[in-house]
Amino acid sequence: MAVRSVIRATRTWTRAYLHRAASHQQFRKAFSTTTSRNMFTSELSEADVSALRANKDRLAKDLHHSCQWGFGIRWGDNTTDTGMQRLALSEEDKSVRDWFIQTMKDLKCEITVDEMGNIFAVRPGRRKDVPATFIGSHLDTQPTGGRYDGILGVLAGVEALKRMDEMGLETEGGVGVVNWTNEEGARFPVSMISSGVWAECIPLSKAHNLKEVPTVASLPTAASAPETMKSALQKIGYLGSVPCSYKTTPMAAHFELHIEQGPHLVSANQRVGVVAAVQAYRWFRLKVIGRDTHTGTTAFEHRADALYAFSRMMVRAREIAAARGCLASVGIIEAKPGSVNTVPGQVNFSLDIRGPETELVAEVEKELRADFDAIAAEEGAGIGKPCRVEWTLDFDSPAVKFHDDCIDCVQQSAHAVVADAPVAVPESLVRHIMSGAGHDSVFTSKRVPTSMIFVPCNDGLSHHPEEFCSADDCATGASVILQAVVRYDRKRFA
Amino acid sequence: MAVRSVIRATRTWTRAYLHRAASHQQFRKAFSTTTSRNMFTSELSEADVSALRANKDRLAKDLHHSCQWGFGIRWGDNTTDTGMQRLALSEEDKSVRDWFIQTMKDLKCEITVDEMGNIFAVRPGRRKDVPATFIGSHLDTQPTGGRYDGILGVLAGVEALKRMDEMGLETEGGVGVVNWTNEEGARFPVSMISSGVWAECIPLSKAHNLKEVPTVASLPTAASAPETMKSALQKIGYLGSVPCSYKTTPMAAHFELHIEQGPHLVSANQRVGVVAAVQAYRWFRLKVIGRDTHTGTTAFEHRADALYAFSRMMVRAREIAAARGCLASVGIIEAKPGSVNTVPGQVNFSLDIRGPETELVAEVEKELRADFDAIAAEEGAGIGKPCRVEWTLDFDSPAVKFHDDCIDCVQQSAHAVVADAPVAVPESLVRHIMSGAGHDSVFTSKRVPTSMIFVPCNDGLSHHPEEFCSADDCATGASVILQAVVRYDRKRFA
Repeated sequence: MAVRSVIRATRTWTRAYLHRAASHQQFRKAFSTTTSRNMFTSELSEADVSALRANKDRLAKDLHHSCQWGFGIRWGDNTTDTGMQRLALSEEDKSVRDWFIQTMKDLKCEITVDEMGNIFAVRPGRRKDVPATFIGSHLDTQPTGGRYDGILGVLAGVEALKRMDEMGLETEGGVGVVNWTNEEGARFPVSMISSGVWAECIPLSKAHNLKEVPTVASLPTAASAPETMKSALQKIGYLGSVPCSYKTTPMAAHFELHIEQGPHLVSANQRVGVVAAVQAYRWFRLKVIGRDTHTGTTAFEHRADALYAFSRMMVRAREIAAARGCLASVGIIEAKPGSVNTVPGQVNFSLDIRGPETELVAEVEKELRADFDAIAAEEGAGIGKPCRVEWTLDFDSPAVKFHDDCIDCVQQSAHAVVADAPVAVPESLVRHIMSGAGHDSVFTSKRVPTSMIFVPCNDGLSHHPEEFCSADDCATGASVILQAVVRYDRKRFA
Repeated sequence: MAVRSVIRATRTWTRAYLHRAASHQQFRKAFSTTTSRNMFTSELSEADVSALRANKDRLAKDLHHSCQWGFGIRWGDNTTDTGMQRLALSEEDKSVRDWFIQTMKDLKCEITVDEMGNIFAVRPGRRKDVPATFIGSHLDTQPTGGRYDGILGVLAGVEALKRMDEMGLETEGGVGVVNWTNEEGARFPVSMISSGVWAECIPLSKAHNLKEVPTVASLPTAASAPETMKSALQKIGYLGSVPCSYKTTPMAAHFELHIEQGPHLVSANQRVGVVAAVQAYRWFRLKVIGRDTHTGTTAFEHRADALYAFSRMMVRAREIAAARGCLASVGIIEAKPGSVNTVPGQVNFSLDIRGPETELVAEVEKELRADFDAIAAEEGAGIGKPCRVEWTLDFDSPAVKFHDDCIDCVQQSAHAVVADAPVAVPESLVRHIMSGAGHDSVFTSKRVPTSMIFVPCNDGLSHHPEEFCSADDCATGASVILQAVVRYDRKRFA
C-alpha cells in the first residue's frame, strides 16, 4: 500500500486539475442570458462543448452506491476498498439492474429490455425518427473482480445523462445508456455474448442454451446444477420480449468508457487513451486424454499423465506466444478423476490466445497445435498409449478497427478535457491506444460507428479485487464521453 | 484388446496349471479315513497344508457379484468388463457392506463394526482367549477404479473362510476378515485412515471431522455440500459403537492379498509377490498464491500467474524425483478464480512423493521445496509481487518392513501353491517385492505381525477401470493367503 500511495500522490496534480475547470454554474451562465428554454446541442459553440464536465463527486457516489450489490473481497480500510463478485444474472446483478432502471426512469428515460436481458435506457432527443447515440458497458463482474471494469462505463453514462438533465441540454437525436448482459463471460463462458447476439453475430439459441461453467457454479451466487442463460434470465425476471437485434433496437453510435486494464497509461502518467483498435483473440477449450493409473506403483515411463502433459503445454505456450508478441493464458483447469493417488487420465483447460493482428493469433495457434501434439505423443509413448489432445474453438474475435468519426469525437473531447492541465503540452496526456481486452464495443462496431475511451487504473491491474481507478480519472473519462456524445450528436445533424 | 489377448493366452498355462492340483475331494479323503469330527489345523501334515486351494470359480463369482454395487465405466464386451466407482461410505459402499456382513454371518462369523465403520467378521477357533488372525483389505474404490484393488483382498478372505467351512477345518485361534473403511483416500483425502485410527496413529476426531474432497463431491454418489466422515458413516448406518483401536479389537496377525498395481510380476511372468516392505511416501497439499489479472491486457512480465508457476513446478518435480529413483505426482488441482480471461491468482494442488527409503523421500521433498520457492519467486518478480508457495503435510508414511513370521508363512505358501507348475524351477514364479502403494497393512504392521501377497495385474495398470487380474491369478493369491493363515495358526500354537 505504501508504494501505491506515493505513486498516487505524485500523479494527483494533473488528475485533480482537470476538474477544477468549468463548473455547472459557469456553463449555465453562458446560456441563461440568451434563453430560458432548454438548450440544443446545435446551439453550443465549440468552447461550450469543451467546457462540459461530469460531476466527479456524484459519479463516485453513484458508482460506489451501485457496488453495494455484490461487493467482494476487502483489501483496504476505506468503505469502498473491496472487490466485486457480481456474476451475470445473479441475485446481485438483478438488484443493480433494478436500481439502474429506476435511476434512468427518474431521468425520464424510455426503457427497453430485450431477450438477452440487455437494458437500453434512452433519453429522447428533439427528433424521434432517428436512433439514439449510446453510451454502453456492463454491470456484471468477474468472480474476483473490481469496482471499475464495466461498471464505470455504465455509471459514466448515467452521469452524462444526469448532467444533460440538470443543464437542460437537449440533443437532436436521443442519447441512451445500455447495460449489456454477461460481458465478462465469467459465469456463462462466452464473453460479450449479448452484444454479440444484438449484432447478430451469435445466434440467440446458442446464447440462451449456454450453460454456466462448473467452477463458477459452485459460488454461492449460482445454483449447484449448471443453469442456462435463458433460465437464469427468467429466474431474475430479465428475459425481455423485445428481439435482441440491432435491427429492432438500433443505435446511431456506441461509445464506451473503460479502465485500460493494462500498464500503458498509468506508467506513462497519461490520463486518456483514445482507443482506435482492439487486439484479436481466440478462446479454446482443450482436452488432454491420458490414462488413470496409481501414483505409487506406476513408474514415470509407464505413465500417460494428462496433467504432466498439460504442464509442459502451458510452459511451451508462453514461450511461443512471447516470441510473437502475443499472449497465451489458461484460466480454467480441471483434472480427472481428481484423487491424490491417481495419475490424472484427463485434463480439460481453457486457452486464450491474443495478439495485435488476427494473423499473428492464427500463427501462434498453429504452432501450439503442433507442439501440443508433440508433447502429448511423448507422454506415454513408452507404453504405446500416449496422451492425445483435442481442441474446440469457443470464440473467435478478429482484430477490430474503430470508426473514424467516433475516434475523432473522442480525441477532440479528450484534448478539450485536458486542455488547461498545467503541463507544457496538455495533449501529451492523451494517446491513441489498442485495447488488449474484448469489449461490447467489438460487437457494436460491426453494426454502428463505435469507439472507446480508456482511463488509467493502478498498476494496470484488473480482474482483481484491488482494481482501482481514482475518482479524478473516472470523472475525466466521464467528461470525455459526455463531450464525445454531444459532439457526435452535433456532427450527425450538421 | 488384441495385444492383451495374446499376452493373456501365452501366460495362461502356468496360471491354469496351479489350479488343477489338489481339489476339495482329494483333501477331504485324506482325513475322512481317520475321523468324522472337524479337522484341526494342528493335525494337518505339511503336505496337507500345501494341498489347500481356494475355489477359483466361486471366488470369481463372488467377486463379480459384489461388484454389482458401484460398477463403473465399461471397457469390454464381457459382463464383468467394467471399472468400479464405489466411493467410501456411498450408497453403493453401504450395499456391498450389507452383503459382506450377511455372507459372513452365513459362515457363522461374529461381526463387529467400530466407530470408523471397519467391519471385523471372525470365524471362532477352538481357543476363545486369543485374538483372531485376520485377512483384510477394503471394499471402497477410486472414482474411476477397477474390480480388484482392495476388493480381491476382502473376497479372498471370504473365499478362505468358505473353504475352511466346507472342509470342516477348525483353527486353533479364530480367523477373521476385516473390511477397512476409506482405504483409498479418494473421497476422504487421507488414505488408510481407518486402519490408521485402529492402530492409534491417527486421532479418531481428525478422522471423524475429515471432509470429502470437492472434486469427488460433485460425483453423483456424494452430496453437493462436502460431508464429514462421521456424518457419512451415520448416513449409511455404519457408525459403530465399538472403539476403533487395536486394543479393543485385537489381532494376532494381518495378511493382505492385493494386485501388484505395478509392472514387475506381469512383465517377468511371475505369479506371486511375497511383499517384504512398503515404500515410503508423503502427501502434501500445496498452495501457490499469485495475482488475478486480466488475460488480455497483462503482459507476461506483469503477471504473477499461479497456474504457470504450478506448471513449471510439476515439470521440475518429475525431473528431481526421477533423478533419485523416486516418484512425484499431482492428482488434484484447482485454479482460482476459474475464469477464461482471468490469470489464476491461486492454485491448490496435491503432491504425492514416494521412494524406496524414508530418507530419499525427505531429500526429494527438500529439493522440491527449494526449487518451488525459486520458481514462485521468478513469476511476478518484475512487478515486485512474485508468487509464493505454501506446503501442508497431510500424510507421512515412512518405509515399512513387514514381519518375518508372516513373510515366512507367505513364502512357504507361495512356493507350495506353485510347486507343481510345469516349469523347470517353480519357485522362480515367486519373488520378494516391495510395495509401491500404501495399504492398510502399513498400519496393522505397526501393532501386529503383518505381511502381504501380490498377484500380477495386466500392464501393471490400477486405479483405472481396465484394471484386470485373471481368475487364475486371483485364485492363486487366495490359495496362498488361505495357506498362510493356516500356517500362521499352526506356528503360533506350535
